[in-house]
Amino acid sequence: MFFHVQKLINEIVPDEPDPAAANALQEGLGGQFGEMRTMMQYLFQSFNFRGKAKPYLDLIQGVGIEEISHVELIATTINRLVDGSPRYQGKAMGDGDGGTPLEIALDGHGKSNIHHWLVASQGAMPVDAAGNPWSGSYVYNSGNLSLDLLYNLMLESTGRLQKCRLYEMTRNKTARSTISYLIVRDHAHENVFAKALESLGVNWNKLLPIPNFDATKFPEVKQLMDKGLHNQQY
Amino acid sequence: MFFHVQKLINEIVPDEPDPAAANALQEGLGGQFGEMRTMMQYLFQSFNFRGKAKPYLDLIQGVGIEEISHVELIATTINRLVDGSPRYQGKAMGDGDGGTPLEIALDGHGKSNIHHWLVASQGAMPVDAAGNPWSGSYVYNSGNLSLDLLYNLMLESTGRLQKCRLYEMTRNKTARSTISYLIVRDHAHENVFAKALESLGVNWNKLLPIPNFDATKFPEVKQLMDKGLHNQQY
Amino acid sequence: MFFHVQKLINEIVPDEPDPAAANALQEGLGGQFGEMRTMMQYLFQSFNFRGKAKPYLDLIQGVGIEEISHVELIATTINRLVDGSPRYQGKAMGDGDGGTPLEIALDGHGKSNIHHWLVASQGAMPVDAAGNPWSGSYVYNSGNLSLDLLYNLMLESTGRLQKCRLYEMTRNKTARSTISYLIVRDHAHENVFAKALESLGVNWNKLLPIPNFDATKFPEVKQLMDKGLHNQQY
Amino acid sequence: MFFHVQKLINEIVPDEPDPAAANALQEGLGGQFGEMRTMMQYLFQSFNFRGKAKPYLDLIQGVGIEEISHVELIATTINRLVDGSPRYQGKAMGDGDGGTPLEIALDGHGKSNIHHWLVASQGAMPVDAAGNPWSGSYVYNSGNLSLDLLYNLMLESTGRLQKCRLYEMTRNKTARSTISYLIVRDHAHENVFAKALESLGVNWNKLLPIPNFDATKFPEVKQLMDKGLHNQQY
Amino acid sequence: MFFHVQKLINEIVPDEPDPAAANALQEGLGGQFGEMRTMMQYLFQSFNFRGKAKPYLDLIQGVGIEEISHVELIATTINRLVDGSPRYQGKAMGDGDGGTPLEIALDGHGKSNIHHWLVASQGAMPVDAAGNPWSGSYVYNSGNLSLDLLYNLMLESTGRLQKCRLYEMTRNKTARSTISYLIVRDHAHENVFAKALESLGVNWNKLLPIPNFDATKFPEVKQLMDKGLHNQQY
Amino acid sequence: MFFHVQKLINEIVPDEPDPAAANALQEGLGGQFGEMRTMMQYLFQSFNFRGKAKPYLDLIQGVGIEEISHVELIATTINRLVDGSPRYQGKAMGDGDGGTPLEIALDGHGKSNIHHWLVASQGAMPVDAAGNPWSGSYVYNSGNLSLDLLYNLMLESTGRLQKCRLYEMTRNKTARSTISYLIVRDHAHENVFAKALESLGVNWNKLLPIPNFDATKFPEVKQLMDKGLHNQQY
Ligand SMILES: [Ca+2]
Ligand SMILES: [Ca+2]
Ligand SMILES: [Ca+2]
Ligand SMILES: [Ca+2]
Ligand SMILES: [Ca+2]
Ligand SMILES: [Ca+2]
Repeated sequence: MFFHVQKLINEIVPDEPDPAAANALQEGLGGQFGEMRTMMQYLFQSFNFRGKAKPYLDLIQGVGIEEISHVELIATTINRLVDGSPRYQGKAMGDGDGGTPLEIALDGHGKSNIHHWLVASQGAMPVDAAGNPWSGSYVYNSGNLSLDLLYNLMLESTGRLQKCRLYEMTRNKTARSTISYLIVRDHAHENVFAKALESLGVNWNKLLPIPNFDATKFPEVKQLMDKGLHNQQY
Repeated sequence: MFFHVQKLINEIVPDEPDPAAANALQEGLGGQFGEMRTMMQYLFQSFNFRGKAKPYLDLIQGVGIEEISHVELIATTINRLVDGSPRYQGKAMGDGDGGTPLEIALDGHGKSNIHHWLVASQGAMPVDAAGNPWSGSYVYNSGNLSLDLLYNLMLESTGRLQKCRLYEMTRNKTARSTISYLIVRDHAHENVFAKALESLGVNWNKLLPIPNFDATKFPEVKQLMDKGLHNQQY
Repeated sequence: MFFHVQKLINEIVPDEPDPAAANALQEGLGGQFGEMRTMMQYLFQSFNFRGKAKPYLDLIQGVGIEEISHVELIATTINRLVDGSPRYQGKAMGDGDGGTPLEIALDGHGKSNIHHWLVASQGAMPVDAAGNPWSGSYVYNSGNLSLDLLYNLMLESTGRLQKCRLYEMTRNKTARSTISYLIVRDHAHENVFAKALESLGVNWNKLLPIPNFDATKFPEVKQLMDKGLHNQQY
Repeated sequence: MFFHVQKLINEIVPDEPDPAAANALQEGLGGQFGEMRTMMQYLFQSFNFRGKAKPYLDLIQGVGIEEISHVELIATTINRLVDGSPRYQGKAMGDGDGGTPLEIALDGHGKSNIHHWLVASQGAMPVDAAGNPWSGSYVYNSGNLSLDLLYNLMLESTGRLQKCRLYEMTRNKTARSTISYLIVRDHAHENVFAKALESLGVNWNKLLPIPNFDATKFPEVKQLMDKGLHNQQY
Repeated sequence: MFFHVQKLINEIVPDEPDPAAANALQEGLGGQFGEMRTMMQYLFQSFNFRGKAKPYLDLIQGVGIEEISHVELIATTINRLVDGSPRYQGKAMGDGDGGTPLEIALDGHGKSNIHHWLVASQGAMPVDAAGNPWSGSYVYNSGNLSLDLLYNLMLESTGRLQKCRLYEMTRNKTARSTISYLIVRDHAHENVFAKALESLGVNWNKLLPIPNFDATKFPEVKQLMDKGLHNQQY
Repeated sequence: MFFHVQKLINEIVPDEPDPAAANALQEGLGGQFGEMRTMMQYLFQSFNFRGKAKPYLDLIQGVGIEEISHVELIATTINRLVDGSPRYQGKAMGDGDGGTPLEIALDGHGKSNIHHWLVASQGAMPVDAAGNPWSGSYVYNSGNLSLDLLYNLMLESTGRLQKCRLYEMTRNKTARSTISYLIVRDHAHENVFAKALESLGVNWNKLLPIPNFDATKFPEVKQLMDKGLHNQQY
């Protein structure tokens, strides 16, 4: 059984609306390596878990539940990027200079997603940054524990890789605050799956972390890692 | 933020494995009107909710959270139908009489899903009963409160309609116990959305419930309705 | 049996070509709530209609047939927006200033659809504004009359909602003349389905119309409503 | 503008219901080479037609309009095959012998489609015989007249090829009466596109018809060809 | 540049036709973890390879080229299973006992694929065992060498896992000869990617092979491994 | 069995990177009428070939094998267009003027594909220019030789038509060198299939080539045709 409190897992930093950043962030929500994928993959792996290796079940399920909160966080972030923000003081979207409101909103140098305005009512959608809807075919659950854990490790690493690219695609603070949080938690989850695989026999030596990229060069990430957030498990 | 306890929202009655029932139940899990759809639609509607009408947000979100537990319930049920059950005493699947194990498992008069055995390792999948993967294009979130509520009402009614057909497709008690629970909760949710729409001006008179079908003719449903389960909100 | 006369159901006002408007209008043609959807949904509902409630069959089928003419109207409109118009006097597309013809045609600030030029030969396509092809999975036909009518009402309302957004996305008169006509007819169809549901027991009171938006603030829409076009049935 | 009369383009011969035949016929309705495809391809080609070669427009559009009536015919046929027929006297589906109604209906040796019963309420669906929804990506409209006509010729020939295979897959008279009619009209349309291409320069000699198969060995087809139905144009 | 000789990479053992085995084998051809996937994934990884680590390029490309021959082998195998075989002496499909030819061919207890007969003319198709077409979205190419190799290792292991299940689903010798060959080569490729990852730092210890399953209990596999085929690289 | 040498089938001319051209070229790689399609269609037709008409098998297979080299060529070309080129001297992408690297890379007036940067690591992807993944449903293999050849002829002609449009969409020399080569080889393949159909009875007279467009007005194409490349067969 699942429960909820009306509080985000991480605070979102306010900034100007930014339709292009909103569209890029869709990859982290509804993309093949985004939060809906990790959430659904780990939940299905835990619903279908058999046998007595309960610590592994607890581990996969624990991460899966955290991922629902990540879906909530990134969807809410996208929502703010196509709408406005608490301290919004800037150029009003869709006012002035003779354009119709939506003409102006859409004018993101072609990098915004027309569906955000036309279909989704300025909200997040279960699609990736190229507009492909999330698909159930993404979920991997082979029933072989080593393979499932290996895939999950690869999934978190790819998620972190894409989010580091996302960080560099935008300067918007609303976007970057959420991206940074998710980078650090991907790192934590990569470690969790790596250790589980170690208990099954592998010695990672210098292969991990993948990507071998020092994300502390992003100030928001450094701040969270200084607090040890990449080592906490819920 | 989301939380979880390792307890199903409703108990599953044990019975023999039944691959054909498992495949039919996939419609209730990954179908266009199944539990993954209601869960994701209500969660996106709540993540994207704006304005001050907080009681409506609470209502949509409350139902959405319950739907995650429905996904867990029906996925676990399918898992048991393709595996075995606690009190399993019957003909061992895949033993004896000269067939290879999987030849026997697959012999469900062509009504089982080969992916349950070949890909999913005898587990539930995010697909419908015809094998189509769940799609993000199912999620409806127009941003117009009346429309979203009307769609949600229609979604619960269609879910109940399909689950009544599912009930009649199988005699397996494992399948029927979960189907019956979901019928009663669909009924409860239909009522919730109907009342919300009443507060916005409509008078349903004799139109509801849709379908106008007395599900108490199914004994398992009657038992749950006698307990008033169709009137409870979480 | 179906017949055709070579005359559009509404006249298209000439204006300059406009590739960005052409792409936005694709949502109204091949989108999940566009004219191909209403056409196919109502035709399938009428082909599969059973029982003796013939007035409801006539109603659903009548609207469905009108929708074929809407598909013709909006496809022809898109075709003109990517080609030219009868009174076309303006800047020739793809001539002069050193660009290759197609470089210039594509230069719609990234809001045009490259497939309009590369695949469709400057014509309309059965896709939505984000490039997703129309899908048979859109068609809803539950076999329950109340549910089918309720879905159809919701479909027309969502169509009108999206078309009001479309109107505000462009100033092109070719686009706006067709959008306005379709807004008014969506309104008419919403009323038709609302009344059919009233005959089954509901009292809409102040819930309708959805969206509760006075489209007469769009001059082209006002002109058509002044003629009573939103009250006519074919 | 499109019109309709409540009369099928060809009479359907009554016979017993036959869920397996119903599913096979879905290929002729919603398959890649079925009636929805020809209808939509020719309508889009006519909506997007430019230039002065009006006889070719009239030809493509004329065939396209006839195809809407074919969609109506085959959808209605499928509907009858999953329901019953006027003179139905046989074994009631879903009664007697201890099975639940739907258990019996589904018992078509695994060749029926569970969505016909669970989702579509015993009606036709816009999908193919393997359950894939019809897709807008099927529509071909290159803007080059020779290519469009060549594709259309190939489309009709493939349609006729598949329908001859369909004829041999079933003995049901309801199914065969519609299949036979569509075979003959495919033949007629193949001839129409062949002649149009001759006027553009090709000499088919002995290449046509494709497939080079004497469909008059099917008695229902022979009867229609004896009436000259393969030479009529509407 | 690519070349070809008209010789299969492994000989196919003749046996009776078997439509159910043909459909199951489609997973190994067009499934998410089948031969088209490995072929395309490795080819794209090699086409997009950058930098100076040429031995890794050679390795990935070498395996990718072998995979084209695997696609050829399994497609040809499926083709024979729906047609006949060199020494075919058995019950003629589609003759005698009063059924139409296709009625008999289709009678595979609902486990055959109607598209093999109706669309593909008794040939292999680029789809999986549940009828889903192969999708470009399967291809993984992150640009990070460690991640790409890790994914490839996981892909080969999953392929071997599924093929071991496939082996147990059928007794047909035509099917089993090809399945056994592919199991052994998956094993070889798993080793290749494992060693490449070792050179980047990991020590697999007892984690590999995954699945930890002794495939030599399948006689055809044992025969090939006795010849050392799982250790050869092309 | 397939083999490979590390040499492209045609040399790629170096020029500046060009993300917009890279995205347009995706149509020629992963589009419905691109190189992956011709490659897979001809390979499946040859794997499924039956009967004794070996010269036709050799012809279809020969073209199919060449198409693998075309896939390699166009994928490599796209890869260079999103990365750099040997003689690259120009404005460094992603440096200077205050933008983050990816902000600058993405600034292609909305005509670039965000997945090239975020998902594919600046590499080619198996998708079309509108972002749709390549689909196995594209492959046509009816089993009727005349139909398969006719479809192949139409496929090559459509490919050439689209590539002529592609040529005019860009001035980039890297893109144009590959496009020109593919135009000439499409022409050669159109001729091959046309002659094969002549041997089956048709006389093309003045219908071919389609499109009836003199591609020698493109200088790079003229150069290749002067060498007779449109008449060579491998
Ligand atoms: Ca996460
Ligand atoms: Ca529910
Ligand atoms: Ca309409
Ligand atoms: Ca037809
Ligand atoms: Ca392989
Ligand atoms: Ca080519």
